[in-house]
Amino acid sequence: MTTDPSALVNTGRLRSKLAAAGIDVLVVTAPENSYYLSGVFIRTQISIRDRLALVIWPLDAAPTFVVCNIEESLARAEGSITDIRTYVEHAETPMSRVVKVLNERGFGRLRIGIERNYLPVSAFDELRQGVPQADLVGADVLIESVRAVKTEAETSRITAAFRSTETAIRDAWGTSAGGDTEKTVADRMLFSMLAHGASGLRHMTLASGENTVHAHMTPGGRRLAAGDTVLTDTGAHFYGFSSDMARMGIVGTPTQAQRDEYARYREVYVELLHFIRPGITAADVYAHCKAAYETAGLPMTSPHVGHSLTRMAGHENPILHPGCDLPLEAGMLLAVEPTFKPRPDQRYHIEDLVQVTETGSRILTDWASTDRMIEFAAGPR
Amino acid sequence: MTTDPSALVNTGRLRSKLAAAGIDVLVVTAPENSYYLSGVFIRTQISIRDRLALVIWPLDAAPTFVVCNIEESLARAEGSITDIRTYVEHAETPMSRVVKVLNERGFGRLRIGIERNYLPVSAFDELRQGVPQADLVGADVLIESVRAVKTEAETSRITAAFRSTETAIRDAWGTSAGGDTEKTVADRMLFSMLAHGASGLRHMTLASGENTVHAHMTPGGRRLAAGDTVLTDTGAHFYGFSSDMARMGIVGTPTQAQRDEYARYREVYVELLHFIRPGITAADVYAHCKAAYETAGLPMTSPHVGHSLTRMAGHENPILHPGCDLPLEAGMLLAVEPTFKPRPDQRYHIEDLVQVTETGSRILTDWASTDRMIEFAAGPR
Repeated sequence: MTTDPSALVNTGRLRSKLAAAGIDVLVVTAPENSYYLSGVFIRTQISIRDRLALVIWPLDAAPTFVVCNIEESLARAEGSITDIRTYVEHAETPMSRVVKVLNERGFGRLRIGIERNYLPVSAFDELRQGVPQADLVGADVLIESVRAVKTEAETSRITAAFRSTETAIRDAWGTSAGGDTEKTVADRMLFSMLAHGASGLRHMTLASGENTVHAHMTPGGRRLAAGDTVLTDTGAHFYGFSSDMARMGIVGTPTQAQRDEYARYREVYVELLHFIRPGITAADVYAHCKAAYETAGLPMTSPHVGHSLTRMAGHENPILHPGCDLPLEAGMLLAVEPTFKPRPDQRYHIEDLVQVTETGSRILTDWASTDRMIEFAAGPR
Repeated sequence: MTTDPSALVNTGRLRSKLAAAGIDVLVVTAPENSYYLSGVFIRTQISIRDRLALVIWPLDAAPTFVVCNIEESLARAEGSITDIRTYVEHAETPMSRVVKVLNERGFGRLRIGIERNYLPVSAFDELRQGVPQADLVGADVLIESVRAVKTEAETSRITAAFRSTETAIRDAWGTSAGGDTEKTVADRMLFSMLAHGASGLRHMTLASGENTVHAHMTPGGRRLAAGDTVLTDTGAHFYGFSSDMARMGIVGTPTQAQRDEYARYREVYVELLHFIRPGITAADVYAHCKAAYETAGLPMTSPHVGHSLTRMAGHENPILHPGCDLPLEAGMLLAVEPTFKPRPDQRYHIEDLVQVTETGSRILTDWASTDRMIEFAAGPR
């Protein structure tokens, strides 16, 4: 699956946002930002965090990519930026190389957009001292709001990642049963995602019974028992694009009380999915959800009820929380995920992918199939 | 596998290093540091990066753990810190909660150790303004050097993670052959690690032929062919402790030239493993390796030749590079990994786990079995 890298970057939107903010050049290194602008996923940005890969992206000129020499061959093989400068780690810092490029390219006295929510203090100080006359301004939300509106190619690839995940959950749960450990079920889900093309896991919550209250416990030795609810919140990386979705299961046949409890939650959930539309703000969605929970008599415990996501998943602005006044715009993708915790030992969680359209929204995952919890066989198969 | 959490933290060493540096209290949030001090792996510290989990660790009093309320139940269920304070994300920032605790506990005017190489500028500014009279000092290397000396319980669990990884590589390669894609082989390795208890992958390089030159390419559709060398650098999380090791393979029978080339590299490598001992510095190890490469007529292209590692793996001080003057001490664990790139389309990489002892070193992985590249069947099985 190959796509022209330029089809994956919303360059027009980026240019207009930079111009509106008076930013002359961006210097970014958060993994999701450097991946977005360079087209190269450099894994060590996460696993060996100090080995920064930085994109210098001017408003009106070609970008420069600064990477560790260990990652140079990958940057050249997979990336879209042709001006690549390398540093030797431990011999020089990544930021010292960036400072040289900024000064050499005449950017040292301009307004430079940086990631105030990512850049470590030590790297910031080095930048500050290296370009003392530059105006350094936070551009975190700016670049998130650029990425929030997806290109068609991005939407189709993210949607494919979610759909493969959904299929994998159903495949794995269909071959699991009461008596299996959480780890066994989680491993089957991962195998199934890998078989559908995933290169690796992004996150895996697979919890049963009282473990459903822990948002992110590592799946362990607890064995699924008849009557348990099962909660998954998972995602994987598919050809450079990631998923993040949640589904509920039940071991055996649910009691009428379980059916009713789930149905009350799911009714509010589905109504919320359909409430998404352009023009309203992220906070409006949260407020609507909160009111719907109150009307339905459900306790509202979620500090947010969904979020935009990058191609690496993650929680990105707009985030559906009470303080986020960013407007929803056509072309945005949102993972919508209010949760419901009726008791201290029970939590419900569903999460689907929704696209904001010109006139409303389109749900890109199979929300209709969540009308019932997915049934596991009660005993060993 | 359960271990008393206090057996996993080198509290005596931490206390003496803090006292020597005149630091009254640590405030840490890098995932490896908060995991080390709290005993809880909060996965969203990596996948939802802004959701900080911070440990406040005073020299002479009980620690406080500040977490998002979404992660509270996990922190209580798995952690060793009993004073847990929560924040509601988006309603308040993690650092605002930390500032309250620091002032409330009387730490607001003291010398506070922080992570200058991790703390984002925005969080640092908030801390700076919240405790204007505190002396904020970088403690990054201090805490790495505390963690570098492992307790016995840590050593045994990290060793187990490496050994399981080694077994998994051999199992998976033993059922693979020419004609398989890199992804198929990588998936088999992951399955095998999961079967040995891993909860998830840390990193996976599985490259064949000319792809061996890319340090961290995602395993893809290239098919192993007779005569290809195969390189893996991989690791996974086993019961909270991670591995990071590298091995070489060959599809079919190596030519005499391949055998010789590998043997020249491996001879220098093994000599380096045995060179590790207490008292010398990390830079001494690098210099020794460089000299050995020169003597053997091998090009030296590695900016470092190994590193300490946390329980989550990663590259930690001491790092075996020319600028690291930290001394090796008994009880340290090092992943030793010089690489060798004889041509633009060929790279070799072996990596083993070495413990620094009172008198020398002990190699904890099966280095002896690397005397030959691991042979894959040449054609489909």
